[in-house]
Amino acid sequence: MKLIRFGDVGKEKPGVQLENGTKIDVSHFGEDYNETFFETKGIERLKNWLKDNESKCPSISAEARLGSPISRPSKLVCIGLNYAQHAVEAGMKIPSEPVLFFKSTTAIIGPNDDVIIPKGSKKTDWEVELAVVIGKKASYISKEEVIDHIAGYVLHNDISERSFQIEREGQWCKGKGCDTFAPLGPFLATTDEIKNPNNLKLWLKLNGKTMQDSSTSDFIFNIQESISYISQFMTLLPGDVISTGTPFGVGLGLKPPLYLKPGDVMELGIEGLGVSKQSVKAYQTK
Amino acid sequence: MKLIRFGDVGKEKPGVQLENGTKIDVSHFGEDYNETFFETKGIERLKNWLKDNESKCPSISAEARLGSPISRPSKLVCIGLNYAQHAVEAGMKIPSEPVLFFKSTTAIIGPNDDVIIPKGSKKTDWEVELAVVIGKKASYISKEEVIDHIAGYVLHNDISERSFQIEREGQWCKGKGCDTFAPLGPFLATTDEIKNPNNLKLWLKLNGKTMQDSSTSDFIFNIQESISYISQFMTLLPGDVISTGTPFGVGLGLKPPLYLKPGDVMELGIEGLGVSKQSVKAYQTK
Repeated sequence: MKLIRFGDVGKEKPGVQLENGTKIDVSHFGEDYNETFFETKGIERLKNWLKDNESKCPSISAEARLGSPISRPSKLVCIGLNYAQHAVEAGMKIPSEPVLFFKSTTAIIGPNDDVIIPKGSKKTDWEVELAVVIGKKASYISKEEVIDHIAGYVLHNDISERSFQIEREGQWCKGKGCDTFAPLGPFLATTDEIKNPNNLKLWLKLNGKTMQDSSTSDFIFNIQESISYISQFMTLLPGDVISTGTPFGVGLGLKPPLYLKPGDVMELGIEGLGVSKQSVKAYQTK
Repeated sequence: MKLIRFGDVGKEKPGVQLENGTKIDVSHFGEDYNETFFETKGIERLKNWLKDNESKCPSISAEARLGSPISRPSKLVCIGLNYAQHAVEAGMKIPSEPVLFFKSTTAIIGPNDDVIIPKGSKKTDWEVELAVVIGKKASYISKEEVIDHIAGYVLHNDISERSFQIEREGQWCKGKGCDTFAPLGPFLATTDEIKNPNNLKLWLKLNGKTMQDSSTSDFIFNIQESISYISQFMTLLPGDVISTGTPFGVGLGLKPPLYLKPGDVMELGIEGLGVSKQSVKAYQTK
């Protein structure tokens, strides 16, 4: 099943994208895709509810804005340097265990919303990533238990300001959590849709030119290893989002480096998880 | 006004601690101390509501468990190395601009709950800190605008696992967000109670012995500078918690270093913000 959220910013309603591509409004199910939904087997309940109610659900216009398919998670945890060739291009060593950092959840936007270059930024960069949505509270879980704790998967562009991240006295979160820095979606694909999350093609184009083109089979730490690892350091809640790192091909790694500027367009996708597209805008004082 | 939350874990109700120390149950006000409460001038509304209703509010028994006085914030952002002598004891240089990191909000517990040493930890440490609770959405605010964006202040023990934080392949958040690592409270003191947040004594005792004893007047970056700074990198939401760093006297800085063990008791306080007390326990497999 493909879960979507649609409508105005902050007022998104839950929907489902059907096999044939039609999007339907499931507001009458009465729940948003949040911690409670995932915690109480919402995916299963929604699937059952649709058996009786699908034909009564209004369809959504193709022009409707999509929001993040997950209502604000308690956290957005990311794995850094999880593809060997990307660690090299970033000028960093290949980690012996996963590197973790947080993105502020206020950075989350819809898949096709504008990305805003923050005030004072000169080094805003792209990063296509596979993100995992937690389905069940996870603390000290083994690699074998991980798949059972996943609700689904979602496409993520882990936008990063390299100067804020690396040159401003420490801790990457400074360059990772700016507003609009986490486009999520178009949809959350439930686990039954993705046979092997550790073998998915992913790519990103900037202004039509392919910049990243890789596969999650190149992970240093696969999904099972990464999520088991994180759960040794903190409890993951239903609805939490874990982003698994970006492959080779970011702006920082180019010679000379290339960063986003107003008017640029990013288009990115992951096999089975659809495509998103963001236009880049300058920050405008309100 | 002093806001408290009391009752069983995850089922806390809102309360108020009166001038005379009596604690009253304000459940009938009908709101929890969360983003919506702070966003909609909840403190002012509650103050007005109490004028008519205080005498009808049941008092809370002195034995009732206290929870965090803030219902789960969207984020818990911390400033690192914000006291010069602490930067030196940690073997790090004095930062030229604030160092930022996140604690997972799943680390938040009540002021007198047990602190659990995580599995595999050998270096769990204490850190008394002044934390600020945001009252109004803050993005790109100036130093002069900061005070107007604060709802109040709260005592925080920024428990830290030094090995996870420093020796495990990077990004401090790994040693900062373990479950129980963020005791908050006993109460949130609203801004009218704290004349100058940049001049408050703060201290921590381990098993009765004073380990930290300092004043927020020793901040490298004061409250106004710190919060204005953070707001350049991310939007702060009402109810978000900003912890302002710890002074000299943590276990890491002792020669030889001293870390927490089961049976230890931490007691800590800040002028005007009360005292909290946590017993240290070993992790028990459920």
